[in-house]
Amino acid sequence: MAEVNANYAKLPGSYLFSEIARRTAAFSEANPDVKLIKMGIGDVTRPLAPVVIEAMHAAVDDLARVETFAGYGPEQGYDFLRNAIAEHDFAARGADISPDEIFVSDGAKSDCGNIGDILGPNNKVAVCDPVYPVYVDTNAMAGRAGDYDEATQRWTNIHYMPTTAENGFSPAIPDETADVIYLCSPNNPTGTVLNADQLQAWVDYANAHGSIIMFDAAYERFIVEDGVPHSIFEIPGAKTCAIEFRSFSKTAGFTGARCGYTVVPRELERQDMSLNAMWNRRQTTKFNGASYVIQRGAEAVFTPEGSKQIDETIEYYRANARTIKDGLENLGLAVYGAVNSPYVWCKTPGDMGSWDFFTLLLEQAGVITTPGAGFGPSGEGYIRLTAFGDAGATREAIERIGKLSL
Amino acid sequence: MAEVNANYAKLPGSYLFSEIARRTAAFSEANPDVKLIKMGIGDVTRPLAPVVIEAMHAAVDDLARVETFAGYGPEQGYDFLRNAIAEHDFAARGADISPDEIFVSDGAKSDCGNIGDILGPNNKVAVCDPVYPVYVDTNAMAGRAGDYDEATQRWTNIHYMPTTAENGFSPAIPDETADVIYLCSPNNPTGTVLNADQLQAWVDYANAHGSIIMFDAAYERFIVEDGVPHSIFEIPGAKTCAIEFRSFSKTAGFTGARCGYTVVPRELERQDMSLNAMWNRRQTTKFNGASYVIQRGAEAVFTPEGSKQIDETIEYYRANARTIKDGLENLGLAVYGAVNSPYVWCKTPGDMGSWDFFTLLLEQAGVITTPGAGFGPSGEGYIRLTAFGDAGATREAIERIGKLSL
Repeated sequence: MAEVNANYAKLPGSYLFSEIARRTAAFSEANPDVKLIKMGIGDVTRPLAPVVIEAMHAAVDDLARVETFAGYGPEQGYDFLRNAIAEHDFAARGADISPDEIFVSDGAKSDCGNIGDILGPNNKVAVCDPVYPVYVDTNAMAGRAGDYDEATQRWTNIHYMPTTAENGFSPAIPDETADVIYLCSPNNPTGTVLNADQLQAWVDYANAHGSIIMFDAAYERFIVEDGVPHSIFEIPGAKTCAIEFRSFSKTAGFTGARCGYTVVPRELERQDMSLNAMWNRRQTTKFNGASYVIQRGAEAVFTPEGSKQIDETIEYYRANARTIKDGLENLGLAVYGAVNSPYVWCKTPGDMGSWDFFTLLLEQAGVITTPGAGFGPSGEGYIRLTAFGDAGATREAIERIGKLSL
Repeated sequence: MAEVNANYAKLPGSYLFSEIARRTAAFSEANPDVKLIKMGIGDVTRPLAPVVIEAMHAAVDDLARVETFAGYGPEQGYDFLRNAIAEHDFAARGADISPDEIFVSDGAKSDCGNIGDILGPNNKVAVCDPVYPVYVDTNAMAGRAGDYDEATQRWTNIHYMPTTAENGFSPAIPDETADVIYLCSPNNPTGTVLNADQLQAWVDYANAHGSIIMFDAAYERFIVEDGVPHSIFEIPGAKTCAIEFRSFSKTAGFTGARCGYTVVPRELERQDMSLNAMWNRRQTTKFNGASYVIQRGAEAVFTPEGSKQIDETIEYYRANARTIKDGLENLGLAVYGAVNSPYVWCKTPGDMGSWDFFTLLLEQAGVITTPGAGFGPSGEGYIRLTAFGDAGATREAIERIGKLSL
């Protein structure tokens, strides 16, 4: 009799966005005249940059002719893209990452999920709370999370690091040893960042304890402040303890096109094994490269014109984030994130629960947000708003919220 | 201290194609005037069908406008593609597969590799010998293969089923219980097929023993003979015991574009768990959908015009396969596969080893093939030639080989 992976039976349902959809649908049915404004989902809405479109069209045409047809590409990504990434995302920021440390993929979610393949079953995993659920669920699937406790909404073998206004959204270094530490900056969902000193402390901890930092930098393009690293490899010592996930999704609007990459330094070794070699083996065995068409599009992001066009779109979203932040602060609400991020993390008024505030904004303003509690117990008392929407709709949402007495 | 996946240390190097490349480079350097003809790698060379190109251009244009922009799509694939697959690949062949049993991905290699995520560690895995290495290596990575024995070139805990001319390339039903059975028809590397009766025997075995058949049908579009199922779901009883992997790579030239899909029937349950639900959870947690552009291209494959254009390309490759098969048979060689497959599996002359025959063809005819021994011990005494090349070059290769005295 074939055996299934018993860890899947332990997974609680993932109800956050389906519950939001259910409540929203119920409200809409009862109030068909209210035009809802969606600020809940973290998905981009602006079109791809013109140079990216042009590059993708050219790549499609390459596939139309025998002379230029592209079959199987390198599983690690084409050199044209790996080289561009090494130059623009790393060398330009003083980080020494070579193309053979860069693995191009169909997206950061795949890589965040699959990276566990090269880890053993007994690692102690540490995550922030609130957290992007993929880090936790993928470790639970691999048997590293223990059991799920409905009462605490936590897994018994995961080390949770609360990040709240009280600690400035900076997770505390654990007392016990954490073997694998997930850090995300700019953070999803809180929109807050870790500065160079804070990241240095984590790198020092990881090197001292032999831990591995899984650094998710999917939102780095939104950083505007000095002293906030775009890559963990700007921090001395990171190459012996960190893996970094990057994405074209939020940088360049590739959520539907699909492209990301993962950096695994050659210096990163544990138990005499090179993690770069292990990830290379994983990718060459279980992956066949990202689409040629999409990699050509991603390459165009790094041209001078591409970079300028990308910045214009990012600035469009940043302006939305400022609109949201300023509007909510004018109402006397405490607002976090938003500066170096498309995410605005807003404290609920008084002692209101995050689902209650979600419901209030839905029913009284027709604005859909995400309750912070959906990202973990320490997200209770907050909601997340996203800046990825239409500028006019974003202004209208804030105007509607401004008329409420909170 | 973080622990790595210790199973990776057990993996032998994957030397087949690098060894071929090394020997080929050495020969080329010594004989710069010889124009080599490549018949080794299983990669397509013909351009994408015009309707596919048109659909991809239209999809790229969708991403250029706010009104038509596509962000995150369903992780399982868009309905437009899942519906087309259900209708044309299954209903049209009398197989009852619904769209929610179809999971679109970036390719069959990813799915063949990732499917092990939903299986437990203690399954006894059975594979054919020779075999596509991904089935074996991914199970070794998951700890299901035992240890690798250099002497036998086999893993201690894998059940190998020799497929050779002696048994008509039909693997024998195991005496012991095999929990997970990989079958590939039309087969890579041998190019041979399993007929409906042979597949029925496997389905009956799997249902009787609670086994799961992993059925790789990546080459089904090459089938011309009656009585050879294109899908295992044409076989009664398969929905309670089989998972099927399909690909647009060899069907429609998507090796560089990247698209495939996996069918996990709702009736497939083990230990009270639905494998459809488990795979859905795996994909929604560790994958973010195949590229919108590429899914639109795949959709066009199923239009009447697309189907006609695809058939023309497949017929181009089939003609190459006939050229190779007829040419080698005229030399008195025993040739297998080729009829329902782009792969030609050729017995070496006399008792010649497969690497020796590879070297002979390289040095005396300038033709690059793949030694059968590279796919497993039972591939010794055979070579694989592929029909994916240029028709003129294929004819020339066979003319050159025809001048040898074998």
